[in-house]
Amino acid sequence: MAQEEVAAAGPRRVSRQGGSDDAVIDLARGHPDDGLLPLGLVRDAARRRLEIDDASLLQYGAERGDDGFRHALASFLTELGASPQPATTPASHDGTGRSMPERALADRLLVTAGASQALDLLCTRFTRPGDVVLVEEPTYHLARDVFADHGLRVVGIPGDAGGIDPDALADALEDGAGETRVAFVYLVPFFGNPTGATLDRSRRHALLDVTARHDVLLVTDEVYRFLPFNGAPPASLAEEARTRGQGRIVSLGSFSKILAPGLRLGWIEADEDVLHAIEHSGLYQSGGGANPFVAALVGTLLEQGVLPPHVARVRGELADRERALTAALRREIPGAETIGAAGGYFVWLRVPGTDAASLLPTARAQGVAYTPGPRFSTMDALHDRYRVSFAHYPADRLEEAAHRLAGVVAQAAALPYEGART
Amino acid sequence: MAQEEVAAAGPRRVSRQGGSDDAVIDLARGHPDDGLLPLGLVRDAARRRLEIDDASLLQYGAERGDDGFRHALASFLTELGASPQPATTPASHDGTGRSMPERALADRLLVTAGASQALDLLCTRFTRPGDVVLVEEPTYHLARDVFADHGLRVVGIPGDAGGIDPDALADALEDGAGETRVAFVYLVPFFGNPTGATLDRSRRHALLDVTARHDVLLVTDEVYRFLPFNGAPPASLAEEARTRGQGRIVSLGSFSKILAPGLRLGWIEADEDVLHAIEHSGLYQSGGGANPFVAALVGTLLEQGVLPPHVARVRGELADRERALTAALRREIPGAETIGAAGGYFVWLRVPGTDAASLLPTARAQGVAYTPGPRFSTMDALHDRYRVSFAHYPADRLEEAAHRLAGVVAQAAALPYEGART
Repeated sequence: MAQEEVAAAGPRRVSRQGGSDDAVIDLARGHPDDGLLPLGLVRDAARRRLEIDDASLLQYGAERGDDGFRHALASFLTELGASPQPATTPASHDGTGRSMPERALADRLLVTAGASQALDLLCTRFTRPGDVVLVEEPTYHLARDVFADHGLRVVGIPGDAGGIDPDALADALEDGAGETRVAFVYLVPFFGNPTGATLDRSRRHALLDVTARHDVLLVTDEVYRFLPFNGAPPASLAEEARTRGQGRIVSLGSFSKILAPGLRLGWIEADEDVLHAIEHSGLYQSGGGANPFVAALVGTLLEQGVLPPHVARVRGELADRERALTAALRREIPGAETIGAAGGYFVWLRVPGTDAASLLPTARAQGVAYTPGPRFSTMDALHDRYRVSFAHYPADRLEEAAHRLAGVVAQAAALPYEGART
Repeated sequence: MAQEEVAAAGPRRVSRQGGSDDAVIDLARGHPDDGLLPLGLVRDAARRRLEIDDASLLQYGAERGDDGFRHALASFLTELGASPQPATTPASHDGTGRSMPERALADRLLVTAGASQALDLLCTRFTRPGDVVLVEEPTYHLARDVFADHGLRVVGIPGDAGGIDPDALADALEDGAGETRVAFVYLVPFFGNPTGATLDRSRRHALLDVTARHDVLLVTDEVYRFLPFNGAPPASLAEEARTRGQGRIVSLGSFSKILAPGLRLGWIEADEDVLHAIEHSGLYQSGGGANPFVAALVGTLLEQGVLPPHVARVRGELADRERALTAALRREIPGAETIGAAGGYFVWLRVPGTDAASLLPTARAQGVAYTPGPRFSTMDALHDRYRVSFAHYPADRLEEAAHRLAGVVAQAAALPYEGART
């Protein structure tokens, strides 16, 4: 979803830890390097918006977000995403310059301060301590910290390179009935964290069927949706559900991966009842809409039309990096298995016979780091898995990281075998 | 704390409601008019920060907030507040250009996305559904919405023009022991919402004694602290507690009332254990620090030294408005009783024999609005009270509003008396 190990990554934290980390290529860093962040675009949009003599962006904002911003966002999402009706179809316009699908989408959007804030608020509004959240095994680890804050129990559902198994989900929903309440199902369906896997198209439909049949809320964390390396981004699951007239789906979106995480700006796409619940939360009633100042600057940027080309550049750069990293891992580490990412930030590496967590101190000492598989497991499994991000370094550093990691693995293999827990 | 009835106040909401509200002087609006918002200062700070070739403000932020920003904030708070040791005392400097008290304060600060977000997160981290929150009667009404979201029971403690009664608080803490857990005590201690009252100095010490004796967390919402109309701002209660070596106090601060609410930037001042709990929340771990982009712009603004003169101007303007409104209410409405505000945004008006809620539709029709007293009551009381804000209109409009309200009250008095519930 969002930030990965910023604690280890922020320059100040690194310097507090002694400075030696500067020499470590830290593939745990699930955030872009500065070169992928379009400072010039933000500078230009801020200048344009702030030179207008209109202080409204300094006021409290409407709880759903400014109407104009939500429409600009809907246009942008329609342009960037796979649109069922092209935005340029003249018959679908109503005189505002926005197409009808865009206007319908705008009414299903609510502005957030990022996907993490949205997820936290969904927990506040839709869960009680002791409730169960069903997640993929493995799952985004920091979402589990959000769930823990709300006293929720996390139960993992098996998946594979095609995403979560809808039959296993159906079994869990049937088994769990009566015992504890399932508050919602949480997934990262597209180019997911940690595996990079995307939910198969047929499984999407099965998943919507299962959650509709059990009338359970489905929260899909779609922050990597617009980062496919080939072809158009998938439709949001909220849009799929709407088209099929099915289920209670909340799709979480964010500008963190396509513009800049420091802006803390995202959105929820959902049916009216969910938007209503969030809009009428104490947080939004008391504090007003999420980040109206930032939204005004980003709204200007959206209207300038400069973000789609930037996203295309980011996609291309990430694809190059993924290719370089995956190739280097396969070349350098005998026996390495990877799920090659088709988008997003992460390669999910398996090195059979190794224990990722216990190797990490050695790896750090030899100038490479990663996030060990068990951090993402709901059942202390996945010990021979490594989540390695290609978002934070250029290709040559990623290749060097793979080389260093290969050295660490080779040394471990030369030691007496202690039995890897897999 | 934060926003007041933005739903009714935002331009788009007003137009949705039919446009007639433009003619209503809405004293329910507890937010500044655009004229009090320093667009030029924000424009200049944004330009200066964004022309620097440093994209770090677009990255995820450190959970406590950027170190440099927290030190700039500590300097600013020390300058603006009543500082026990002037920041210019040379002996207290350590070579960084910051005084020792400022450095100590910086270590007690954590950056938030505003006081509402901080309060919501304190509920997430420090409460369980069913817990009790003890508040002043009357209390800030939208904080109650935050508490309701977390399943908390709100119990009111009597107060008066000198703030909450510490003896009554002690009684409640003794009575309640064993039955239900008191999660924390919540107050708006300085120029409060809705009454404008400030906690007496002697009561502050008694309050700290009581909460320390019962080892209960005290959350003080100090968003109006820097808006006294005479003299220096009071010290934060967290600072008072620290000086006295007492209690678990969280002071909530915000830029909303002294700079601009749309920025969604604030801070927590507290002991290490509270900062640690917030820093390690799922929200902050996953999303990174609160609004790092905005904090970077505001940090530049703080370093320019332009905010203290702006706050002084806001104070002067609010004092003029308060004087005009209070005088007009006393002049125009026979029998009106007011707690004259010594700072902040609100006059707490009593018109004996009237029912504020039932008069509101008539008042709206005659071009004036306010928030009825019961909205702030924990026990459906205060029916003859009116919260009227002087933050959103210039003096002549406030005088016109008082005139219109007087007409409404006079008409009601001429009708058969139905018995006001007081």
